[in-house]
Amino acid sequence: MSSFFPQDIIIKKRDGGALTRDEITFFARGVADGSFADYQATALLMAIFWRGMTPQETAWLTDAMLHSGEVIDLRDLPGAKVDKHSTGGVGDKVSLILAPLAAACGLKVPMMSGRGLGHTGGTLDKLEAIPGFRVQLTVPEFRAILQQTGLAMIGQTPQVVPADRKLYSLRDVTGTVECIPLICASIMSKKLAEGIDSLVLDVKFGRGAFMKRKEDALALARAMVETGRAAGKPVRAQLTAMNQPLGRAAGHTLEVIESIECLKGRGPADLMAVTFALTGHMLILGGLARDLAEAQLKMDAAIADGSALQKFRAMCTAQGGDARVVDDYTILPTAKIRVAIKAPAGATGFVSEVDALKCGHAIMALGGGRAAVTDKIDHAVGLADLIKLGEPVAPGTLLCTLHANDEARAARAEALVREAIRFSPTPPAPEALLQELIE
Amino acid sequence: MSSFFPQDIIIKKRDGGALTRDEITFFARGVADGSFADYQATALLMAIFWRGMTPQETAWLTDAMLHSGEVIDLRDLPGAKVDKHSTGGVGDKVSLILAPLAAACGLKVPMMSGRGLGHTGGTLDKLEAIPGFRVQLTVPEFRAILQQTGLAMIGQTPQVVPADRKLYSLRDVTGTVECIPLICASIMSKKLAEGIDSLVLDVKFGRGAFMKRKEDALALARAMVETGRAAGKPVRAQLTAMNQPLGRAAGHTLEVIESIECLKGRGPADLMAVTFALTGHMLILGGLARDLAEAQLKMDAAIADGSALQKFRAMCTAQGGDARVVDDYTILPTAKIRVAIKAPAGATGFVSEVDALKCGHAIMALGGGRAAVTDKIDHAVGLADLIKLGEPVAPGTLLCTLHANDEARAARAEALVREAIRFSPTPPAPEALLQELIE
Repeated sequence: MSSFFPQDIIIKKRDGGALTRDEITFFARGVADGSFADYQATALLMAIFWRGMTPQETAWLTDAMLHSGEVIDLRDLPGAKVDKHSTGGVGDKVSLILAPLAAACGLKVPMMSGRGLGHTGGTLDKLEAIPGFRVQLTVPEFRAILQQTGLAMIGQTPQVVPADRKLYSLRDVTGTVECIPLICASIMSKKLAEGIDSLVLDVKFGRGAFMKRKEDALALARAMVETGRAAGKPVRAQLTAMNQPLGRAAGHTLEVIESIECLKGRGPADLMAVTFALTGHMLILGGLARDLAEAQLKMDAAIADGSALQKFRAMCTAQGGDARVVDDYTILPTAKIRVAIKAPAGATGFVSEVDALKCGHAIMALGGGRAAVTDKIDHAVGLADLIKLGEPVAPGTLLCTLHANDEARAARAEALVREAIRFSPTPPAPEALLQELIE
Repeated sequence: MSSFFPQDIIIKKRDGGALTRDEITFFARGVADGSFADYQATALLMAIFWRGMTPQETAWLTDAMLHSGEVIDLRDLPGAKVDKHSTGGVGDKVSLILAPLAAACGLKVPMMSGRGLGHTGGTLDKLEAIPGFRVQLTVPEFRAILQQTGLAMIGQTPQVVPADRKLYSLRDVTGTVECIPLICASIMSKKLAEGIDSLVLDVKFGRGAFMKRKEDALALARAMVETGRAAGKPVRAQLTAMNQPLGRAAGHTLEVIESIECLKGRGPADLMAVTFALTGHMLILGGLARDLAEAQLKMDAAIADGSALQKFRAMCTAQGGDARVVDDYTILPTAKIRVAIKAPAGATGFVSEVDALKCGHAIMALGGGRAAVTDKIDHAVGLADLIKLGEPVAPGTLLCTLHANDEARAARAEALVREAIRFSPTPPAPEALLQELIE
C-alpha cells in the first residue's frame, strides 16, 4: 500500500477535503501499529470532528478499522447470524431479553457488548451480576456456545478492532467523542467483526441518551445504515425516545430480574414494546418473518411456551453462570437497604417527567455506575418500582424503591430521584417511544 | 493555580468558547512540563485552528508561553532596547543591515533570531557564513556584548520559551502551523523574552512569503500589535510585499556581502527602502527620532560616516567572527561554479515577474536551504545580480549569476530561475513594496 505523511492527511481534512481510501487505511493501520503518532491521530480526529466525513469516507474508515484486527468468520455456522446494538440508555436491558428471544425464534445471535460508563449501564456488567457468568470468552468458545445454544453474549476480544480501542481511548480524553462518522465507524467496525449477516440498531435520543437531539440520532442512524450497506450487510435502525428510564428497574441485579420477568411474560409495556420491535426487525432481516405482525406471533409463542426463558437458562449454563437465577432471584447480589420513595403531602395529578439522566446519576450515587473505566461497581444497588410518565399520583404514591448498601449514598440518590420526578395537574402529552425506522 | 482536565479545555474551545487566563496558563505550562499530553495539546491546537482565539486569549497565551521559561531582564542596561522581527522572505537580509545601523544611531538591539527552513533563509545561518561567528551565546554573554557594542545577534537559548519549542514541533507535524493566534503567540513570546522595550515587525505577504494573502498578513500584524499593547510594549508592524526577492542577492555568503555593501552606502533601492523604514520606526519607538524624516537624517549620517559599518565590525569581533570580512569578501565561503543566466534570443521588453518562491526553490536546489531542520546547508551557493521587476531586457541581458558547487544542482537551479523570471512588452504596474503600517 502507498505511504503518506500523516500531516498531509491532517491538512487535507483540516481544509475540508475528502480523504481517499488509501489515506484512511494508512491512518487506521497506523493508529493500530503506532506509525501514526498519537498526537497526529488526535489532530486528525479534531479535524474530522470539525469537517465531518462523507458516507464513503465513513464506510472506508469502518472497513479499515474492522481489518485492523481479527474478523470472526461464522459462515460455516447454519442459520442467520443477526445482532442488535443500542447506543445506550438508563434502564436499557433489552439485550438480555432480545438475545434469548431471538435465539428461541431460530436466529443465531453473536453478541459482543461493552461495559457501562457514566450514567448508562453496560450489558456485560449486568450479566456479571449473575454468579459465575463469564463474559470474557475466546473466539472458539464463543463460536461453540453460539452453535450449541444459538446465542452468546461476550465482551470484545483483544484481537478484534484494535484500532477502535486505541482511537476510543484517545477520543475520550481529547474532546472528540460526539462525532457522528467516528461513532458510526466505532460501532459498525465492532459489530461487523462479529461475523454477522445483518444488524438491528436501537438509536436512542433524549435526556438519558448519548444523543440529546433527535436530529443527531437520525444522522447517526443514517450513517450506520449506509455503512452497513457499503459493507454488504443489511442494517435497520430504530429511533427510540430515552427521556424516562426504560422499564421500571435500573441497576444491575434489578435489571437482570426485570429481564427474566419479561421472558416470563410479565414485562412492563414500554420495555416489551422496544424489545419486540427490535427483535421483530431481527427476525425479518434473518428471513424468519415477513413483517412485524408475523414476527410478533413467533415472539409471543416463544415467551408463552417458555422457550425464550429456556434460551436464557442455556446461555447462563454455557457461560458458567448459575442458571438457577431464573427461578431464584436471591442468588443475585442483594442490597442491604430499601428506601421507599413516596410522593409528598401536596402531590397531585400525574407524573410529567422522570428524568432519565438524573436517574442515571442516582445509580452512580448509589455506587452502581462508573465515573472512570477502572471503577468497581456495586451490582446490587439501583432503582426498582419506578413510576412511569403519565401515571397518576397522590400523597404517598410509591415513586421508586431505592436499593442501597450505604445510608449516605441512599440519601444522595433519593434527592436525585426526587429531582428527577415531576408532577403536573393534567397528564403529559404522550411521546412515541418508537420513532423513525431507518433502513 | 487552579487545576483543570485537559479535555474540558479542549471541548470548550472545540465548541467555540473563549478560554480563561487560568485555562490558557494551565495549557502552556502543561505543554512545557508534560502534564498536558502531546495528543491533548494537538487536539487543542486543531480546535484553536478551527475556532480561533480572541485578542485577549492570544495575549494570555503569549504571556503564558513567555513565562514558561526565562525572561531576560535588560532594564539595568542604559538606552532603549528595540528589536525587529520579520516573518521571512527570499533575500530578506534586513536584520544584518538594520541591527548595526540602529545601534550606530544609539539604540540597543537585542536580537534573537531563527534558522532558515524551506524556501526562506535564516539570519543565524547567514551570520554563520562569517568564519568564526558564534550565534549560540549564554545570556550573560548576550548581555555583555549588547552593553559593549549596542547590538547582539544570537539564537534562542534553551531556557527561553520552552512551551514554544514544544508547541512548534507539534504544530509542524499536525497541520496547525498557519494559524494567526498561534503564530502571533509564538513570535511575540520569543520577542518579549528578549527584554525589549518596543518592537518593529516586518509582516510580509506574497508569493515568496509565509503569508500568501495580504488579508492574512494584515490580521497577523494586527494580532501582534495588539498582543504587544497587552504586554505594555509598543509595537509597529510594517506590511511589505514579497513577490520578488528583496535586493539582488539570495544565499548566505551572497547576502552577507550585499548587507555589507548596504552599510557602505551601495545597497539596492528596494532593500534600502525596507531597511530604512523598519530602522526608522525603531528609532521613533526608541525615542531617538520624532518621525521618519528625522530618522532618515540620522541613518544617512550613520552610513555616510561609517559608524553603521563599524557596528557590524564590532559585532563580528564580539561574537568571535572574522571582522576582516567587511573589507575582504574572499574570507567567506565561495562557490566553485558561476553560471551567468542570460535572457534568451527572443527576449524583449521588461521583467514582469521574478517569482520569489521559485527563486527560493532554486537556492534549495543548489544546497543552500533546508528541507528538514537537521539538513546541512552550503553557505557559498545562491543567486547574485538578480534582475528586478520592471527592468528592461534584451537578448543576452544578465538575469542572474548562479553560484554553485555542483553542475547538476546548477542545472536544476537554472531551470527554476528561468521559470521564475518572465517578460512583458510593457513595464508591469509598479507594486508598492511598503504597504500598511499597523500600530
